Amino acid sequence: MEHLPNRITADLIESFKSIVGNEYFFADDESLLRYSRDETETLSFKPHVVLKPATSQEISAVLKICNEHQVPVTPRGAGTGLTGGALPHLGGVVISTERLNKILDIDERNLQVTTEPGVITEVLQRAVAEKSLFYPPDPASKGSCFIGGNISENSGGPRAVKYGVVKDYVLNLEVVLPTGEIIWTGANVLKNATGYNITQLVVGSEGTLGIVTKIVLRLIPLPKYDVLMLAPFANLEKACEAVSAIFRAGYTPSALELMEINALKVVSSMIDNHAMPVNDHTEAHLLIEVDGNDTDVLLKEMEQIAGVLEHFEAGELLLAEDAQQKEELWKLRRKVAEYVKLAGYTIEEDAVVPRAELPKLIRGLKVLGRQHDFDAVAYGHAGDGNLHIRIKKEGVPNSYQNPEMDTIVRELFALIKQLGGTISGEHGIGLIQKGFMDIVFEERQLQIMREIKKVFDPNNILNAGKIFD
Amino acid sequence: MEHLPNRITADLIESFKSIVGNEYFFADDESLLRYSRDETETLSFKPHVVLKPATSQEISAVLKICNEHQVPVTPRGAGTGLTGGALPHLGGVVISTERLNKILDIDERNLQVTTEPGVITEVLQRAVAEKSLFYPPDPASKGSCFIGGNISENSGGPRAVKYGVVKDYVLNLEVVLPTGEIIWTGANVLKNATGYNITQLVVGSEGTLGIVTKIVLRLIPLPKYDVLMLAPFANLEKACEAVSAIFRAGYTPSALELMEINALKVVSSMIDNHAMPVNDHTEAHLLIEVDGNDTDVLLKEMEQIAGVLEHFEAGELLLAEDAQQKEELWKLRRKVAEYVKLAGYTIEEDAVVPRAELPKLIRGLKVLGRQHDFDAVAYGHAGDGNLHIRIKKEGVPNSYQNPEMDTIVRELFALIKQLGGTISGEHGIGLIQKGFMDIVFEERQLQIMREIKKVFDPNNILNAGKIFD
Repeated sequence: MEHLPNRITADLIESFKSIVGNEYFFADDESLLRYSRDETETLSFKPHVVLKPATSQEISAVLKICNEHQVPVTPRGAGTGLTGGALPHLGGVVISTERLNKILDIDERNLQVTTEPGVITEVLQRAVAEKSLFYPPDPASKGSCFIGGNISENSGGPRAVKYGVVKDYVLNLEVVLPTGEIIWTGANVLKNATGYNITQLVVGSEGTLGIVTKIVLRLIPLPKYDVLMLAPFANLEKACEAVSAIFRAGYTPSALELMEINALKVVSSMIDNHAMPVNDHTEAHLLIEVDGNDTDVLLKEMEQIAGVLEHFEAGELLLAEDAQQKEELWKLRRKVAEYVKLAGYTIEEDAVVPRAELPKLIRGLKVLGRQHDFDAVAYGHAGDGNLHIRIKKEGVPNSYQNPEMDTIVRELFALIKQLGGTISGEHGIGLIQKGFMDIVFEERQLQIMREIKKVFDPNNILNAGKIFD
Repeated sequence: MEHLPNRITADLIESFKSIVGNEYFFADDESLLRYSRDETETLSFKPHVVLKPATSQEISAVLKICNEHQVPVTPRGAGTGLTGGALPHLGGVVISTERLNKILDIDERNLQVTTEPGVITEVLQRAVAEKSLFYPPDPASKGSCFIGGNISENSGGPRAVKYGVVKDYVLNLEVVLPTGEIIWTGANVLKNATGYNITQLVVGSEGTLGIVTKIVLRLIPLPKYDVLMLAPFANLEKACEAVSAIFRAGYTPSALELMEINALKVVSSMIDNHAMPVNDHTEAHLLIEVDGNDTDVLLKEMEQIAGVLEHFEAGELLLAEDAQQKEELWKLRRKVAEYVKLAGYTIEEDAVVPRAELPKLIRGLKVLGRQHDFDAVAYGHAGDGNLHIRIKKEGVPNSYQNPEMDTIVRELFALIKQLGGTISGEHGIGLIQKGFMDIVFEERQLQIMREIKKVFDPNNILNAGKIFD
């Protein structure tokens, strides 16, 4: 699709203003710049206008007009995405969901919450926790990302290893289609065998099939206690081997995170890190959490997990003593991405493999780094086989449309595919990974996805050029 | 679509024989009769031929021919379906998956199993349990149904209340498309944000989008112990209220089943039932199971659940004493459907509502029964809000294309919709419920489903006329 600035005529601008109100229409430079970026590498693409509607009906009215006039529309949550899903690379209209920010109903009788998409994930989690309810998915950006963005990317986070990802909690969605109709995808029930699963088709579709405007999530009882342990390993591959051994021994931790020491070294050089020791005898840490309703049981379980770790040359284990120490450890883990990006590791891959293949992934990554002269640090959700790989290569801040990085990423992704994995576990494909979809899918699968896109969006106006061309 | 016997020419028959082998081609009366039925009401529709291919490649070759010649194809698992998904109502070819019956790989390192679709669900569960692994979904028919059919219907069962349904375990599928291509839908990983979720689109699509030929399921560690309790209630609605109170108190049982006393009376009149007492002071039983790795914890949890039940006028609680008593209780629960069907309750609905609405559903059902002069018994997965309602009406063995039943079912489904529920929790829509899809979906949603069907099956040959017209 060509760049289409001229389609946004003065008439259209008047229509947009009359729909959302003058004060929620933006075309000033500062706004356009702000909405030109998200957390993806160092990319920036300015839209022509930014709209901040307040209701599904306003979004519907805007989409009807854009569909009629074939104006590109990019939906946007909090802009914390890492693959460019919210970047308006074709210009046009950005629709921000930030004003759809109300939790509509916490249904304690049925353990469900109905929310608008512009609610910050952690705000939602706290609101339901006050009623002893639990919404587990907790991306590292939970303090700033929107629940709507989480739906679009099928986000995960540390607790996914026990509790599953976003898709496992979505019961029903109100969606404004690119053609303007407003539909509900399912029903507010725990089991559903009523026609095709349109709900799950929209989850993870990265804002290409519709704009989600209401979300019904199932909740579970909030576990009362958790126990957190930090385990250092002299050998990174042994740490990875320990991960699958824990599950094979019959334990399912509520988090099982890996941090390579190089990532911690970067962070420690930037802030005072006392939480996780960094020394020459350590190549990686595992952060292991178990949760439940009985502390004695949890402590016993953690002791048994510690027994498993012995076989993998774990160093001295640190059991977090209180809530503050737990929070320090978690905060450091969550901040890793931000700090290593600041330190120049601007390119991120979101590898996921069957968890027992992690050692091979790590080994292959090191070989690639030596061959192609780049630094990489790995950290993330080892329990799920999902590792975030941050890459720093002098003079190359972006992978998108960079031939040198293209070669490197292709080799890495080919390895991931060979190990039975895929190229995104929780960050999506968006703009920057779409060129690599041919590594994991054949043309027929991609054709099916493109045709499904056409079913929802015949004029290809909504987040066009994302996931696939 | 018209009835198409004549499209199956002598030439086509020769092609089919050469693909699957003479001995796996059937057109004799006995075979056609056997494959004319499943467990749906008392319906029967004969196909013209039955094929029993052994591989994806053979299925692909058959589908290519049928697609070219526009011959209707009905895929079939074990024939235990309850909504006519496997009924060849347009004649044509039945493709049975019974020879694709091998468990291909139990991957203990990654807690995954790869299987063909024609494996009996319980056989699969036992095979992985031998390695201390757990595949939780356990439909009542688990001793005879195929795992492939479970994928098609997105089956559940008692354990869904804690562990989720089939869709929560499917990682990746090999599917033969109606046009003959063989694709994999995803990857063998626990988290996946790589393009549209084609895997979840195929799960629950009732054999209309493709024929599933290989299935990769995630497994979890097998819980070591369980505790089972039977709780009688003098009042059915109180029993329903107790169900949601258990969750609100913070407990998630591994099963929470309801049986209305009328269902048990029917069963008791047919077999010696000593497991569940039937008397005039009891309107319903709840069967409650908790599972985990520590019996002391489980007994404590069950005691606390018993405390919750006190507030709902539960009678004398029976804790199953040994494995044999547990098996008796479960066997009786699983056999209810079969016996009440034999007793003339041939029409089944698969209602699902938010669980706190169960009392209203039960109350509404009783009112309808009095208004329209039918007997109904209810039982099933109360913890999920999913109740099976079996209906007996003199002289009306089938709901399909029966105007009298149409009125009744419409009223019942309208109530379910009004309670926030939907018309199938785990049995699917198939043939007999498709006429009611307008109650839960507007035309636009149905249009999306129809167009998705077209993406996969442009000539509408595969299980056409199921789910929607």
